Amino acid sequence: MMFNGYNEELVESIRGWLREDVGSGDVTTGVTVLHGHNSKGIIHAKESGIIAGIPVAQLVFEIVDPLLVFAPKVTDGERVEKGSILAEVEGSTHSILTGERLALNLLQRLSGIATRTRSFVDVLEGIPVRLVDTRKTTPGHRMLEKYAVRTGGGANHRFGLYDAVMIKDNHIKGAGGIRQAVSRARAHIPHTMTIEVETESLEQVEEALSAGADIIMLDNMPPELMKEAVRRIKTKAPHVKTEASGNVSLATVREIAESGVDVISVGRLTYSFDSLDISLDLGEKKEG
Amino acid sequence: MMFNGYNEELVESIRGWLREDVGSGDVTTGVTVLHGHNSKGIIHAKESGIIAGIPVAQLVFEIVDPLLVFAPKVTDGERVEKGSILAEVEGSTHSILTGERLALNLLQRLSGIATRTRSFVDVLEGIPVRLVDTRKTTPGHRMLEKYAVRTGGGANHRFGLYDAVMIKDNHIKGAGGIRQAVSRARAHIPHTMTIEVETESLEQVEEALSAGADIIMLDNMPPELMKEAVRRIKTKAPHVKTEASGNVSLATVREIAESGVDVISVGRLTYSFDSLDISLDLGEKKEG
Amino acid sequence: MMFNGYNEELVESIRGWLREDVGSGDVTTGVTVLHGHNSKGIIHAKESGIIAGIPVAQLVFEIVDPLLVFAPKVTDGERVEKGSILAEVEGSTHSILTGERLALNLLQRLSGIATRTRSFVDVLEGIPVRLVDTRKTTPGHRMLEKYAVRTGGGANHRFGLYDAVMIKDNHIKGAGGIRQAVSRARAHIPHTMTIEVETESLEQVEEALSAGADIIMLDNMPPELMKEAVRRIKTKAPHVKTEASGNVSLATVREIAESGVDVISVGRLTYSFDSLDISLDLGEKKEG
Amino acid sequence: MMFNGYNEELVESIRGWLREDVGSGDVTTGVTVLHGHNSKGIIHAKESGIIAGIPVAQLVFEIVDPLLVFAPKVTDGERVEKGSILAEVEGSTHSILTGERLALNLLQRLSGIATRTRSFVDVLEGIPVRLVDTRKTTPGHRMLEKYAVRTGGGANHRFGLYDAVMIKDNHIKGAGGIRQAVSRARAHIPHTMTIEVETESLEQVEEALSAGADIIMLDNMPPELMKEAVRRIKTKAPHVKTEASGNVSLATVREIAESGVDVISVGRLTYSFDSLDISLDLGEKKEG
Amino acid sequence: MMFNGYNEELVESIRGWLREDVGSGDVTTGVTVLHGHNSKGIIHAKESGIIAGIPVAQLVFEIVDPLLVFAPKVTDGERVEKGSILAEVEGSTHSILTGERLALNLLQRLSGIATRTRSFVDVLEGIPVRLVDTRKTTPGHRMLEKYAVRTGGGANHRFGLYDAVMIKDNHIKGAGGIRQAVSRARAHIPHTMTIEVETESLEQVEEALSAGADIIMLDNMPPELMKEAVRRIKTKAPHVKTEASGNVSLATVREIAESGVDVISVGRLTYSFDSLDISLDLGEKKEG
Amino acid sequence: MMFNGYNEELVESIRGWLREDVGSGDVTTGVTVLHGHNSKGIIHAKESGIIAGIPVAQLVFEIVDPLLVFAPKVTDGERVEKGSILAEVEGSTHSILTGERLALNLLQRLSGIATRTRSFVDVLEGIPVRLVDTRKTTPGHRMLEKYAVRTGGGANHRFGLYDAVMIKDNHIKGAGGIRQAVSRARAHIPHTMTIEVETESLEQVEEALSAGADIIMLDNMPPELMKEAVRRIKTKAPHVKTEASGNVSLATVREIAESGVDVISVGRLTYSFDSLDISLDLGEKKEG
Repeated sequence: MMFNGYNEELVESIRGWLREDVGSGDVTTGVTVLHGHNSKGIIHAKESGIIAGIPVAQLVFEIVDPLLVFAPKVTDGERVEKGSILAEVEGSTHSILTGERLALNLLQRLSGIATRTRSFVDVLEGIPVRLVDTRKTTPGHRMLEKYAVRTGGGANHRFGLYDAVMIKDNHIKGAGGIRQAVSRARAHIPHTMTIEVETESLEQVEEALSAGADIIMLDNMPPELMKEAVRRIKTKAPHVKTEASGNVSLATVREIAESGVDVISVGRLTYSFDSLDISLDLGEKKEG
Repeated sequence: MMFNGYNEELVESIRGWLREDVGSGDVTTGVTVLHGHNSKGIIHAKESGIIAGIPVAQLVFEIVDPLLVFAPKVTDGERVEKGSILAEVEGSTHSILTGERLALNLLQRLSGIATRTRSFVDVLEGIPVRLVDTRKTTPGHRMLEKYAVRTGGGANHRFGLYDAVMIKDNHIKGAGGIRQAVSRARAHIPHTMTIEVETESLEQVEEALSAGADIIMLDNMPPELMKEAVRRIKTKAPHVKTEASGNVSLATVREIAESGVDVISVGRLTYSFDSLDISLDLGEKKEG
Repeated sequence: MMFNGYNEELVESIRGWLREDVGSGDVTTGVTVLHGHNSKGIIHAKESGIIAGIPVAQLVFEIVDPLLVFAPKVTDGERVEKGSILAEVEGSTHSILTGERLALNLLQRLSGIATRTRSFVDVLEGIPVRLVDTRKTTPGHRMLEKYAVRTGGGANHRFGLYDAVMIKDNHIKGAGGIRQAVSRARAHIPHTMTIEVETESLEQVEEALSAGADIIMLDNMPPELMKEAVRRIKTKAPHVKTEASGNVSLATVREIAESGVDVISVGRLTYSFDSLDISLDLGEKKEG
Repeated sequence: MMFNGYNEELVESIRGWLREDVGSGDVTTGVTVLHGHNSKGIIHAKESGIIAGIPVAQLVFEIVDPLLVFAPKVTDGERVEKGSILAEVEGSTHSILTGERLALNLLQRLSGIATRTRSFVDVLEGIPVRLVDTRKTTPGHRMLEKYAVRTGGGANHRFGLYDAVMIKDNHIKGAGGIRQAVSRARAHIPHTMTIEVETESLEQVEEALSAGADIIMLDNMPPELMKEAVRRIKTKAPHVKTEASGNVSLATVREIAESGVDVISVGRLTYSFDSLDISLDLGEKKEG
Repeated sequence: MMFNGYNEELVESIRGWLREDVGSGDVTTGVTVLHGHNSKGIIHAKESGIIAGIPVAQLVFEIVDPLLVFAPKVTDGERVEKGSILAEVEGSTHSILTGERLALNLLQRLSGIATRTRSFVDVLEGIPVRLVDTRKTTPGHRMLEKYAVRTGGGANHRFGLYDAVMIKDNHIKGAGGIRQAVSRARAHIPHTMTIEVETESLEQVEEALSAGADIIMLDNMPPELMKEAVRRIKTKAPHVKTEASGNVSLATVREIAESGVDVISVGRLTYSFDSLDISLDLGEKKEG
Repeated sequence: MMFNGYNEELVESIRGWLREDVGSGDVTTGVTVLHGHNSKGIIHAKESGIIAGIPVAQLVFEIVDPLLVFAPKVTDGERVEKGSILAEVEGSTHSILTGERLALNLLQRLSGIATRTRSFVDVLEGIPVRLVDTRKTTPGHRMLEKYAVRTGGGANHRFGLYDAVMIKDNHIKGAGGIRQAVSRARAHIPHTMTIEVETESLEQVEEALSAGADIIMLDNMPPELMKEAVRRIKTKAPHVKTEASGNVSLATVREIAESGVDVISVGRLTYSFDSLDISLDLGEKKEG
């Protein structure tokens, strides 16, 4: 969804992130590199993985200096090997050095997320289940990280508190029961919105079903219990979606998927990660 | 340095991060929980580690709702065991739920960084060396992550491009040599600022020394080479500091430290990490 | 959903709106009214209608001056008669006069919208249909105006382009058919989001149904056609919602509703309106 | 005055209004329309009226995507008939759809205001009086709405609290009389600013005159009284301007004008209005 | 006009100015002064002059830390002698040191402007003329500097390009003559706004008069010429104001005033100045 | 350091400064000058001095209107005589007039600072000492004013509270002595940062030396004392820098320099100044 047009919010974020790094000025480049000095920067992978964030890196350099010329060599979602060239950026050495760290910091993190997502997706091969992220994203980076998850082959859960109803234990307590919570929500939200209910037992699943939930989350259920919950839901209300959640790891995800759930949500796609090692080497270029 | 007074920048960041999550409104809480409903949220660790970010979580809740009462139960830098209560927050259920995800996302990440930093520090026990971070921090989170590194027992490298000169290979090329780069920098920067030069060989070390660098970075040098470099620097210019850099891991850091360097910088303190698992449970409270 | 907690966005809007009116300073009050002069402002209706926006007016005055004391005399959603007192605000005369125009401009517009909405709702009495707004709201006022619609007894359509899929004629063209548009959308959006398809003929209705739309909009259909469309949808897919749209007026809305649609969306709830006439009279108060 | 050069404030407003509608992204267009798909959008009137806001609509599309080509077909201030084409916009379908709703919402509202203003101006034909607006404008839209009033043939009252002194009843009370209020104001304001005094009786008119007001507002006076007030003012102080105010409608405005006042101010030019019905149709275009 | 209520713009400026000085943090205070250490700061004059800006300094400290207690010892506009205590601020040492430099920088500059203004005013004693500033103020400080001029006993010219018409040579050229410029302006501006015309000869004065200017600026005219210009204006149009401008100094201002002009505008009140020397001494205080 | 690439902060400041002057619009130019009218503005010096700020003026005009063509005729740092042309700007008359005042206000101030700095530098000719500024800069203008000081031949002290440690009397009190303050600071700051200690006596100088300060400020010391302090420091710790401070004027600066200090800091370079008189004349140009 991103990068198809208007990216104002992202542009504003990048400006803020540049301010964080550059502050009152780059005191090294300003005094050591001559004005008018040009270079070509080559961005390459120092380990293999799935690349995500090339258009973000491009945007960083364009914001720093619209005269820089950025040439992508791979497409987001591609798997690359150690040593692959990802992109080249050419123009003012000052500008390249100003944007370098931020562009790399973003590219490394997003590629790390895409790479981890892909490893989950690979484990699920052949099973018709959707792997999704959660709201456990880095503050200020949610849309980017959700994009990286999609790039890695996953899908997204809701974007925030604003675009779907998710009734958890505490809302149920506050409302006086699942039925009351769902019916109160249904009365107030737009007819375009769905209601998901978190459940931990078959009893709660039944309650959510009869309350008219659109999606039922099966939280931390053992495999057998989950299988039974899915069976009941699919029997009574075939259009209701099921979502497994809770401590999903590479070791457990396939067994969870085999319960027949429609969706598995995995917090660790975004809340712990290994950056993919990527760096930029400057080659000199004759002055322009 | 942070949390001693004026934190305007952090407050602005938190407002932006809340906007990201809450957007046009929390559609679940708004319609399921009654106005005036109060609760107590208990924040506890689900695994052991070093805690960092309690005052940040407090600030999140204060910004969401100044009437929430936040009671820390541990101090940043403390090691906690699984199950430890970290803090309690009491007041409007709506407000607690609005701030919950952001407060936890921050606390988990910062504690993850502090925990990893502490593991490096522990390995270095008994050696008078300083472990520092780099600029490979999450965009928009630099000051927080550098704080987490300090909390974990590390120290900080420069904060950004603005507060110290770091002459790398590309600046040297641009300037025509180490001597020219250092002398041009010295002429233009405030007398309060230092100059660090990155070197990869003994020849470069000698050049940096005679150019008058304040700090000499020994980049990716094998142990023997590094030891020799440190020896020469300490002999010729005892007040010049030495810094080891490049692919430092828990496995290699002690050997590197034994070369006698003053400082070791470690990118992976912040650019890959495991969040510490922390969650918030709501207990109901009688209405106010 | 609004006014249950965190209203940061609204606070920012109000600050901007005050800047628009006050600019470099209120040159009249500053020089004619003595410092320390206090008053009580009485806000009253000059015609009858449904009130919406009392908490917004309160927020305006609180932002101007936290020491002003605002006392609501009616609750949003109440019908008031000409002459009714809506609220009182007491404190610095300077502050009251600075906030007066903005508070009234908002209160008048929101009450105008609530009043018109109520007149539609009254006409629909006894029919189980939901009256909703559209995205034809005043730029910068969407959340407030959607709140006013709810206050008047209506409900909301989606909040913006970000929280639901609405496939219109042009998207269908772009995608190459309803089936392709829906299936491509379903593959990419979160499983928590719904898909609405706009149709203008029974043929399109059938296509939308078989494509798996969650909501089918019947756009500008004559009553008989609409009735038939509803019948087919309810027969084949009872959980799919139907929405009537297009040139809905007080004169036509009941007949439209009798077609059995679930929802009727009405642009003119917000894109044309009569402000409700409301004013503020200052009574002097002895100095504090 | 607007659209002659620097429109920074308007650009910022438009960015905020786009954020309101687009939020975290247009989930429909992003997934249904192919990248690189181009179209031509045709904006046309669905009823007759006076057009205002064509350059504003153009600015919206330019902000969304600088590559869109916008071709106006009418000029602001022109009367158009139902079906007239107002403008065409060509380029990326994604970009056109992102800007469509905001551009239309603005164009409809501003044209509605211009149309209503023109109907007042038409009624006043032949009488040398100036029809002006008030501060009862939509928060955040004042400069645009005042522009629409000028486009419709009206003129503007002061722009805000900052550019002229307007002494009302409450200021008079606060100052202890008209004479004191005017003399205190005169002493403090720039010599480039004027003082207007609101009066409700001949006695107050005389007081305002002798206090040295530059403009005297005749508030809610019956025609005979207003005529007498104008006569006295013009006799004693020919350079003092007179302004009629209060419950001016199409039915009463001509009689009021015949009293000989210089200016008539009409709140309902902006605080109640019917949007002019305008829409955008997409025609496909071969890909670029 | 300022400090009577809503000072949002000033608060925003102060936040920005603090960011400029504090940046990523006060690295000295944070590490040398203990948390919880309290002090009393005493602000005193190191030379004599007119004080302006005490409420601004107070606002700075309040923004840094709402718990600081600020006690003014003089009032803006007072003349103080060397050594006079101007204010005391008590509370957290960290907070006082964070705000100190900004508070002093503002207080010193504003008092410098007030002191210089007073020296002009003193020279004019006994002549009924108004001394005003210009738009030659420090960018970002206009409202504060115009306040300092008023505090010193002067008055203000227009606040910006937005609140009065000032037709200069270039506008006359652009319009094709004074008469055309004035009449075109009169047709378009609000009836609440005045028109000033800049003239350099008696011929231009006559033209401005017959064009209907409200204020006539006599730019750089020799005393005799200025006297004659004033005489003609006062004879033909007693309500038209006259303003002398151009190279006004302490040495020439009285002779200029004796020409009988109503207003003298002096650029150097704000565009060159000597700060008044003011400093803050910290006294320790027992911990709170 | 500035003007070599990314100037986002400065661009934002200029936008804010334009808003201050233009506000809701330039009411004069908008109504007197025809659309499409073009001119050439010639910026020239009305007195001799050192020019600083030509690229800033250029940036102002570019921000107002990217189509204006700005041609510098001198380079920052050049000495110009009265009457010299500094730059020409060509294009829309509206745009030139909108930017004129701000461009001149900046150019006049910065050139005034450069000119004063140069006069200090000239007095110091032949002595190997560095003349630096302080934090007594105009709020919001620090980076520009520090640039002007460099342009005039001076150098900069630290940029703010964030980039160097400066331990003053009050920090010493807070820490319990110079030794404690320095050692606590050293433990917490990055190894890339330096520590300066302010001293007023030889005793304090000795303490600072043995505490390990990097720079020792000699505050307000009489020449003999200062000479002795410098001698001791250079003897015991040749790499420690010395800085003289306090009441430095053109009359005293040479004697101070002869004490042998490395650096002299002068507050009055920026906190009192005479703007250099610069103006812009419009020549008409045939329409484009």
